[in-house]
Amino acid sequence: MAPPMLRLSYNDIHNAIARTAPRIMSEFSPDLFIAIGGGGFIPARILRTFCKVTTDGKKRNIPIQAVGLTLYESLGGIEEVVGQEVVRVQWIDFSTLGSKLKHGGLLGRHILIVDEVDDTRTTLVYTIKEMQKDINKQLEAIEDVDERERLRATTKLGIFVVHNKLKPKAGEIPADVAYFSAVDTPDVWLAYPWECETDIEEHDMLRKDNPTL
Amino acid sequence: MAPPMLRLSYNDIHNAIARTAPRIMSEFSPDLFIAIGGGGFIPARILRTFCKVTTDGKKRNIPIQAVGLTLYESLGGIEEVVGQEVVRVQWIDFSTLGSKLKHGGLLGRHILIVDEVDDTRTTLVYTIKEMQKDINKQLEAIEDVDERERLRATTKLGIFVVHNKLKPKAGEIPADVAYFSAVDTPDVWLAYPWECETDIEEHDMLRKDNPTL
Repeated sequence: MAPPMLRLSYNDIHNAIARTAPRIMSEFSPDLFIAIGGGGFIPARILRTFCKVTTDGKKRNIPIQAVGLTLYESLGGIEEVVGQEVVRVQWIDFSTLGSKLKHGGLLGRHILIVDEVDDTRTTLVYTIKEMQKDINKQLEAIEDVDERERLRATTKLGIFVVHNKLKPKAGEIPADVAYFSAVDTPDVWLAYPWECETDIEEHDMLRKDNPTL
Repeated sequence: MAPPMLRLSYNDIHNAIARTAPRIMSEFSPDLFIAIGGGGFIPARILRTFCKVTTDGKKRNIPIQAVGLTLYESLGGIEEVVGQEVVRVQWIDFSTLGSKLKHGGLLGRHILIVDEVDDTRTTLVYTIKEMQKDINKQLEAIEDVDERERLRATTKLGIFVVHNKLKPKAGEIPADVAYFSAVDTPDVWLAYPWECETDIEEHDMLRKDNPTL
């Protein structure tokens, strides 16, 4: 028997993100998004619409940096395999991020990592660890101890996923990392609209047969 | 009077990309996508679904690298201003792209730059020029003249935009760069679904009042 499939329309995703954004803004107040490609690209772009910040009386977009990890590339972005190695194919561009911002670009910021789904948690845990290495490297470069500790205390990492599958995870999110999921689901196949190779209107129509979750 | 607005649903975008993908595959056959963020993130992720390549009997995704340009950041991704300076905030990650691929990662490839709209053409022309600089730098590193010319001849650049606004452009696409647009539109305000901050279902409904274009 095929595993149960949860079909999702683009508007489902848009609305799930719209509903979650106010909580992200009030509890985490991000000022940098890290989109994990390719799955995080669409959620990050939608989330940005609902997370504008006002500076000098102007509404401004929160910048998005993209990172790429081969785990997704090789498997078509649909599922993770526990224990599979994660390899970077693109990382944050510090050459530009660092030149315009103090302290290498990450320190003192509220950095939200965005992906479509938290499945086995492998890529999210990998991304968090790598980000923490980058942050620690930038902290070590601060000579003034007080300033270094002030920056350590004000640099925040968070995660946003559209869907969190309620299942055993291959790794743990550190306690000091904020975690937001728009929807918690059982361990079903999530049929995202952007993966629909056939008729998207039919996909949306069939979605009405979704099991009640 | 407000300028005419063309409302677009997510499915409009999905279908426009699905319709154009076979032409992109047969005429250009891309093996690397460059998504211009944030506008190109959603089109690139959707396009990838329709451009899988088969190697060793397995369907594989074409990798996406993201680039960020401040022109978009500062203006909320909606419109360009002629003459405005473009500044990189993220560029291709050669540290990873280059280590796994011969010749620095770009040579011999068919590289498709993806964005949502070709408005004044400023960012697209900028991106093409910067990519050509990178390609030339990688070509110069090839010592064998025959191999260098073979790689020069087989490296291709292309552009895909969902919408091309039929209006005067601030720059020209070089003749050897392939160009694909899913839809050509008059110079109207394109209301993309991912920019909808209010009710996406209402946005879709009001879309029925779109002027015939």
